[in-house]
Amino acid sequence: RSGEMAKLTQLIDNDVFRAYATYTTIVLLKMMLMSPLTSYFRVTRKAVANPEDAVSFGKGESAKKYVRTDQDVERVRRVHLNDLENIVPFLGIGLLYALSGPELYSALLHFRIFVGSRILHTFIYLIPLPQPSRGLTWLAGYAVTISMAYKVLKTTLYL
Amino acid sequence: RSGEMAKLTQLIDNDVFRAYATYTTIVLLKMMLMSPLTSYFRVTRKAVANPEDAVSFGKGESAKKYVRTDQDVERVRRVHLNDLENIVPFLGIGLLYALSGPELYSALLHFRIFVGSRILHTFIYLIPLPQPSRGLTWLAGYAVTISMAYKVLKTTLYL
Amino acid sequence: RSGEMAKLTQLIDNDVFRAYATYTTIVLLKMMLMSPLTSYFRVTRKAVANPEDAVSFGKGESAKKYVRTDQDVERVRRVHLNDLENIVPFLGIGLLYALSGPELYSALLHFRIFVGSRILHTFIYLIPLPQPSRGLTWLAGYAVTISMAYKVLKTTLYL
Repeated sequence: RSGEMAKLTQLIDNDVFRAYATYTTIVLLKMMLMSPLTSYFRVTRKAVANPEDAVSFGKGESAKKYVRTDQDVERVRRVHLNDLENIVPFLGIGLLYALSGPELYSALLHFRIFVGSRILHTFIYLIPLPQPSRGLTWLAGYAVTISMAYKVLKTTLYL
Repeated sequence: RSGEMAKLTQLIDNDVFRAYATYTTIVLLKMMLMSPLTSYFRVTRKAVANPEDAVSFGKGESAKKYVRTDQDVERVRRVHLNDLENIVPFLGIGLLYALSGPELYSALLHFRIFVGSRILHTFIYLIPLPQPSRGLTWLAGYAVTISMAYKVLKTTLYL
Repeated sequence: RSGEMAKLTQLIDNDVFRAYATYTTIVLLKMMLMSPLTSYFRVTRKAVANPEDAVSFGKGESAKKYVRTDQDVERVRRVHLNDLENIVPFLGIGLLYALSGPELYSALLHFRIFVGSRILHTFIYLIPLPQPSRGLTWLAGYAVTISMAYKVLKTTLYL
């Protein structure tokens, strides 16, 4: 089986693919941070989604009042959903782009802009900073994803 | 490093894999369209999710009334979430299916039905057309995803 | 083209990759089950999201009252969204982890804990069982994803 492993290792040894692996892992970890952050705001704002989650705040009827929405919790949840909506396309299109044989400098440029834009987007959304700062960071990530999609379609088009 | 690149190019030169790359990119771009469409409805319906997004509609207290939900905005958001729920399984299962060595005509059939069903689903949801048209387009994409999952498990099962 | 196919078959013949393919397909099918389950609760609780979905419950004005939220429907939808938030990182990080050359027993351990935790999480959320049972199953899947991310970054880091 060492022959097979060698083939797999070749993929992970390719610089473009390694860059994809690194930046994808970072941006997915960034997205994963939104889960404990939501929990943090749910606990400190005492605003949960399920009756069984409110037990630590009080017993019986008094617990039910904590099943409610809170402005800060909803804000983190919007960041999380926006991450999903934008990182899922990056996950798929980025992988195909990495396999389509781009130049290393071009691939790094795309990956860095995408991941940088998503990290900035999170800070701007949570602080929050005034528009159009959030819109512009969103647009940067969106634009590089479309640029990668164009390269994938140009290289692989098979309908 | 040209040897490694050759190996990667082999993947992207495989017809089934090229078809997967093409259809996946198209359906992800389709999903990405839901973001600017949501923004379009938020602006024309004057219904935003964040106070900082309402500033262009008015100042101070008068801006706050635009932080609200709107029927049309919510409809586009449901399309977007439905896309996520269905395209994420296609992304993963479709990739593994493409690597499991299916016949080209069979792979093309699966990919075309899936992508066609998601595009139709979006139009039917947004117009909207009466049920069960939307349900049926959803079902078509769901069924081909399960068919691909069956092929993947039959080929790779390793528990 | 049989040479290319042989290369692809090598990927799917690798034990770690086969295990990834199997567990990923299972957990994505698990997630897909949430869609018909949501429909089941929407029909039995008579609570739909769109006016055109309420037509089977009644005509005209009487149909509109079924466009509403329901506690049980919302619970299934929260399971579905929690799946998306956690399975998307697994999809990407797990793939890169499988390609990073882990030991087979280690890979199986990670994949089994993740998929087991997501199946348990679903049952605990839907029954529902008291906390912290749901939180702990969520944490198990979260922890193994971070463990895989660490292995990916250690193997591939390229910034």
